[in-house]
Amino acid sequence: MTNWVNQPIKQLSVVRLNEALEHQSQLTKPPGSMGRMEELAVLLCALQDTSRPTLERVSIRIFAADHGVVAEGVSAFAQEVIVEMIRNLAKGGAAISVLAEAQGADFAVINMGTVVPAPEHAKVIQNPLGAGTNNFCGQPAMSSEQLAEALKAGSDIAEQLHQQQSQLFIGGEMGIGNTTSAAALACALMSESPEKLVGLGTGVDADGLQRKLDVVARALDFHKASLAEPLTSLQCLGGFEIAALTGTYLRCAQLGIPSLVDGFICSVAALAAMQINQSCQDWLLFSHQSAERGHARVLEVLEAKPLLNMDMRLGEGSGAAVALPLLRLACELHNKMATFESAGVSTE
Amino acid sequence: MTNWVNQPIKQLSVVRLNEALEHQSQLTKPPGSMGRMEELAVLLCALQDTSRPTLERVSIRIFAADHGVVAEGVSAFAQEVIVEMIRNLAKGGAAISVLAEAQGADFAVINMGTVVPAPEHAKVIQNPLGAGTNNFCGQPAMSSEQLAEALKAGSDIAEQLHQQQSQLFIGGEMGIGNTTSAAALACALMSESPEKLVGLGTGVDADGLQRKLDVVARALDFHKASLAEPLTSLQCLGGFEIAALTGTYLRCAQLGIPSLVDGFICSVAALAAMQINQSCQDWLLFSHQSAERGHARVLEVLEAKPLLNMDMRLGEGSGAAVALPLLRLACELHNKMATFESAGVSTE
Repeated sequence: MTNWVNQPIKQLSVVRLNEALEHQSQLTKPPGSMGRMEELAVLLCALQDTSRPTLERVSIRIFAADHGVVAEGVSAFAQEVIVEMIRNLAKGGAAISVLAEAQGADFAVINMGTVVPAPEHAKVIQNPLGAGTNNFCGQPAMSSEQLAEALKAGSDIAEQLHQQQSQLFIGGEMGIGNTTSAAALACALMSESPEKLVGLGTGVDADGLQRKLDVVARALDFHKASLAEPLTSLQCLGGFEIAALTGTYLRCAQLGIPSLVDGFICSVAALAAMQINQSCQDWLLFSHQSAERGHARVLEVLEAKPLLNMDMRLGEGSGAAVALPLLRLACELHNKMATFESAGVSTE
Repeated sequence: MTNWVNQPIKQLSVVRLNEALEHQSQLTKPPGSMGRMEELAVLLCALQDTSRPTLERVSIRIFAADHGVVAEGVSAFAQEVIVEMIRNLAKGGAAISVLAEAQGADFAVINMGTVVPAPEHAKVIQNPLGAGTNNFCGQPAMSSEQLAEALKAGSDIAEQLHQQQSQLFIGGEMGIGNTTSAAALACALMSESPEKLVGLGTGVDADGLQRKLDVVARALDFHKASLAEPLTSLQCLGGFEIAALTGTYLRCAQLGIPSLVDGFICSVAALAAMQINQSCQDWLLFSHQSAERGHARVLEVLEAKPLLNMDMRLGEGSGAAVALPLLRLACELHNKMATFESAGVSTE
C-alpha cells in the first residue's frame, strides 16, 4: 500500500546544469559574485530541465491535524485552536495566507483529522483520517492503514500540483502538539537524544519543556522495537500532517516538482522522505533555519544550507514563503542579465 | 561647506513603535514567532510614523567613480570597464538593473567621475568631480572641495528622493579599485589593521591581495596625521562614490528616509556617516553580510544584524535589492494578518 514511495525519483538534467553554469559565467559580474543566488538559478535550471527557469506557478499547501500527545500537556495552546486557525488560514488572516496572497501563490489547507470538526470552506480540502492521532506514549500514533492514507493524501496533492503544472511546492503544517511529535520522530530517525531536539515549540514554559522531554523519552523507549525503519517510526511517532508532508515531498520528487521546505517540522518530514527514498534530496530546497532548538541539528544531518536565518518559528510554511522571493529573483537574474558579449563589457 | 552633515537626524516615533509592538502581539501567531520579520515591521512603523507601513516607492541609486589607486595594481579589472558597466547598468543588463526592474524600484546611476568619459543616457545623472580620485598612496584621494561636492551630490539625491516621496533608499556603488579604498577607510575609521579588512574584492589573486595589503598599509602610514576625523579620513582614503553614499545616508536620515545598506563598501560609507552624525544609525538597515573579508568586522562595529548571508560580493546595491522583499513582506504581514479578536482565535 505504500510501495509507491520507493518508485524512482526524477533525475535532474546534468546537461542543463552545466549549461546554466556556463551561462552564469557569461553574465556581467565577477564569476561567482552573486553567491547562492547563482547556485539557486543553476539548480532550478537542472530541476526544471530548462535554460530559463521560472517560478510563476507556486503552490502552498498546509496540512493540519491534531495530536493525541497533547493529553500530556506539551502545548501552550488548547486543541480547539486548530479549527479556529484552519478557518483563519482559509479566510486569509494567517501569516502564510498573507504571504501566499502577496506573492500570487495558489493556496489551500488540507484537514487531515482534528478532534473538533474542521470548518467547510472553499480553500479547505477535507481528508480526515480520524479525530487526531493517538497519544504515542502508550501506543502507535496511527495505524499502518492511517500511515498509508496520510502518505497517499500527500501523494494526491503532488499529483494535483503536477496536473496544474505547478513549478514549486511549499508545504506547511498546523497542529497543536506537533513539535513534540516531530522531535520524537527526529530522535528516532537520527538516533539522537531528546535533549538535542526537543524545544519550546510555539512557546511552552520551563515546566512544559520538561514535560515534552519526558514524553519524548518515554515514547522512544516504548516504541524502541519499531524505530529501525523510517515508515514505522512515522507510524509510531508522527502525525497525519507530518506523514502527508513526507508523502508530498516524495511524490513531488518523483513527478519533478521541487519543494521549498519550511522549518523544524517540515524538515523532519523531509528527513523521513530522504530516509525512505534517498534521491529525493535533489528536489528539496531548504528555506530557513528556525529558532526551534532542534532545527539546526536536523539541517546538519540533511546537509542543508538554509537560505534564511530570521529567528522565525511559526511554522505554517511561513519561513519558506518568506524565502520564495530569493528563488524568483535568482531566476530573474539568470534570465535577464546581459552577458559580457551582449553588453560589450570587457572581462578583465 | 559640509556643516549640513551635523544637522539633526529625524527622530523615529516611539509612539508608533509601541503601538506596532502591541499590534504584533494581537496578530494570529504565537508572540514573537515571526522573529525578525516582526522587528522589521515595527521599525518601519516607527520610521515612517505610521501604523501601516508600506514600501511601494523604493529608489535605487548607483554611484560610480574611478580610483587613482588602481595604478598600484589592486584590481582584477581594467579602468575602462567602469564606463562599459555604467552603460550596462543604464540599459538594464546589470544585476542591480534586473533586480530594480523586477521589483518596480525607481533606478538611476550617478556618474561621480571616471577616467574615460561616461556615456550619456536617460538613467545616468552626470555629476563628475574629476577623472577619478588621486592615488591615495602619496596624496589625499580628493581635495576638501571635492569631498564637500561628493557629500553634497549625495545630499542632492536624498532631496530628490524626499521630493518624490520615496519610502526607502538603496544605494549601490561601482568603482574599479573601490574595495581597496573602502578597506583603507575602514581601517582608519575603526583603527583596525589591514589584515582584518582587506579582501579579494571582485577577485584578485594572492599577489593582488598582497599588493592591496601593502597599498593600504602605506596609505594609512602616509595619512596618519589626518585620520582622527571621519571627514578627513574620507577625503584622504575614500572615493567620490563612497563619499556620495555617506552624504546620501546622512541626508536621508535627516529627511526621514530609511536606507537599506548593501555590502562592504556601502557599509563603510554608512560607518563614516555614523561617525559623522551618530543618530543616523536609526535609519540604516543592513541587508546582507558579504563574502568580502572585512564586511563581518565592519558589521560588528556597526552593531548591525544583516538580514541575509548568501555569499554575495558583487556590490552595485545587489545584496540590498535581494533583501528588499523581506521588508515588503514584513509590511504585508503587519498590515494584513488577522488579530486573535477579528479571527475569533483563542489566545491559549
